[in-house]
Amino acid sequence: MIDIFTTGGTIDKVYFDANSQFEIGASRVSEMLAEANIRDGFHIHELLRKDSLDLTAEDRDCIVSAVRSCPGQRILITHGTDTMAETADALDAVSDKTIVLFGAMQPARMRVSDAVFNLGFAWGAVQNLPSGVYIAMNGEVFEAGAVRKNREAQRFERA
Amino acid sequence: MIDIFTTGGTIDKVYFDANSQFEIGASRVSEMLAEANIRDGFHIHELLRKDSLDLTAEDRDCIVSAVRSCPGQRILITHGTDTMAETADALDAVSDKTIVLFGAMQPARMRVSDAVFNLGFAWGAVQNLPSGVYIAMNGEVFEAGAVRKNREAQRFERA
Amino acid sequence: MIDIFTTGGTIDKVYFDANSQFEIGASRVSEMLAEANIRDGFHIHELLRKDSLDLTAEDRDCIVSAVRSCPGQRILITHGTDTMAETADALDAVSDKTIVLFGAMQPARMRVSDAVFNLGFAWGAVQNLPSGVYIAMNGEVFEAGAVRKNREAQRFERA
Amino acid sequence: MIDIFTTGGTIDKVYFDANSQFEIGASRVSEMLAEANIRDGFHIHELLRKDSLDLTAEDRDCIVSAVRSCPGQRILITHGTDTMAETADALDAVSDKTIVLFGAMQPARMRVSDAVFNLGFAWGAVQNLPSGVYIAMNGEVFEAGAVRKNREAQRFERA
Repeated sequence: MIDIFTTGGTIDKVYFDANSQFEIGASRVSEMLAEANIRDGFHIHELLRKDSLDLTAEDRDCIVSAVRSCPGQRILITHGTDTMAETADALDAVSDKTIVLFGAMQPARMRVSDAVFNLGFAWGAVQNLPSGVYIAMNGEVFEAGAVRKNREAQRFERA
Repeated sequence: MIDIFTTGGTIDKVYFDANSQFEIGASRVSEMLAEANIRDGFHIHELLRKDSLDLTAEDRDCIVSAVRSCPGQRILITHGTDTMAETADALDAVSDKTIVLFGAMQPARMRVSDAVFNLGFAWGAVQNLPSGVYIAMNGEVFEAGAVRKNREAQRFERA
Repeated sequence: MIDIFTTGGTIDKVYFDANSQFEIGASRVSEMLAEANIRDGFHIHELLRKDSLDLTAEDRDCIVSAVRSCPGQRILITHGTDTMAETADALDAVSDKTIVLFGAMQPARMRVSDAVFNLGFAWGAVQNLPSGVYIAMNGEVFEAGAVRKNREAQRFERA
Repeated sequence: MIDIFTTGGTIDKVYFDANSQFEIGASRVSEMLAEANIRDGFHIHELLRKDSLDLTAEDRDCIVSAVRSCPGQRILITHGTDTMAETADALDAVSDKTIVLFGAMQPARMRVSDAVFNLGFAWGAVQNLPSGVYIAMNGEVFEAGAVRKNREAQRFERA
């Protein structure tokens, strides 16, 4: 069983007109898994629908608390990329689970997006890695505390 | 470095009109990786463009030989699903590499397909698994010799 | 009110595995209209799910009869491209309606397809043309009796 | 020959990260036409890349002037939806051409978008309508001066 917590971020952005702003919609994770013929073996828990730049210390406490109180051992978290590394640091307090954070540089609702690949990659990582907190992005696994987003290159890299 | 060998199968099917038949096109693996922001760290080797039901003993020898003579240790193989387990068996003769076979139930060129998820999942599996031959499909990793395709359910399962 | 009759053809092909053949699925016309924010002003009537090479004289009689007995004046027909011109000829017996046949060279379920453009184009044609039978393909309107499919170029052209 | 002027708007929005804002990218009109197998018979002229709320009187003068000085008789204009009706009014000064404005409620780069249908619909409208200025949206043709955007319903309607 894999527990998936959704917190928002680019991966779940929608195009919301009127004033032509992005807002965050319902997570597409379950649709993406269904398209991959995966219909059981997971639970999705919606926690937040926030751009990760707007996450507060209380939001991070909420994420850590939800993950800690979840009986499952294998945890996926969808998260905005800008402060993903910071939330990974906060989750280091939960030492007995395999926790993998991922997101996307382009929304899952775009025709061209890294969202589905990243979900598949994280799905594999969370099943195979030992306990710990990881970021799985651009086809690489990074350990919490040793990773940063390179905004110019739009990639994660070792810190 | 990951070496990717393409052999055909549903994942690379195109819609070829005139007589409304499927044929196999150029592999979409490099486009799928580019959409996931992965542009280096791999080599793609096109071996065959065959439906896996049409693979001969010579074709399997060719695949085994290509994998064996490749200096890389981490090998991905795209393959039709119908005889993927058989080719995995043949590859068991190559004992010192991590070899992951995958494909798709729906062509990568369809709007709804498991191809991108499966590529992401296999991309993670090949980096994290020890030496051996594996099939990575429907979000699960199976060891060669202990897996079969369930045609009715359109899934792979433990044999 | 626009009446839409579906008869099959490439536009509604699906990828049906087991033996890797194409078969024809439920029409995607209503989904395509919904994506274009069009949710009323039309009725969809499913007549057939056939490759147009397999249409018989009885099938054409059925299409002509259904169109003739429909009270609406504006008729769209989705149809395979190989014998679309032949069915257009048969429909010339219905003289008091605007009848537009269209289809697609690539299935609507493919990532790259002419299906949605062709539907939009036919949607405009059927509203603006006088009574008669027309084929609306590759961005051009052709009158019945003066059009043929060029298989090599994968286009319709004036006969 | 159809002359296509692009001015920006939702139809050509991209997802531009860093601060998660939309910006307007290169027009996808030529790609959309190519997917519909239309590769000649048109010229694309890029005029502006603006959200239509940001268009100034000078911008509208520029659009009117470009359309007037173009030798072609059949003109398509891609435009943001919020002030499309206003630009249509300004174009009424050009009396001897068939001018059709269109855009999209969802960017063409989204998986679900009305952009391709709207392009197909406008492509048909500009070929079949007499001289005049029109808005072709949500499957209907509206004459300049008698149309408004209904923001709540996300549709155009007769004024």
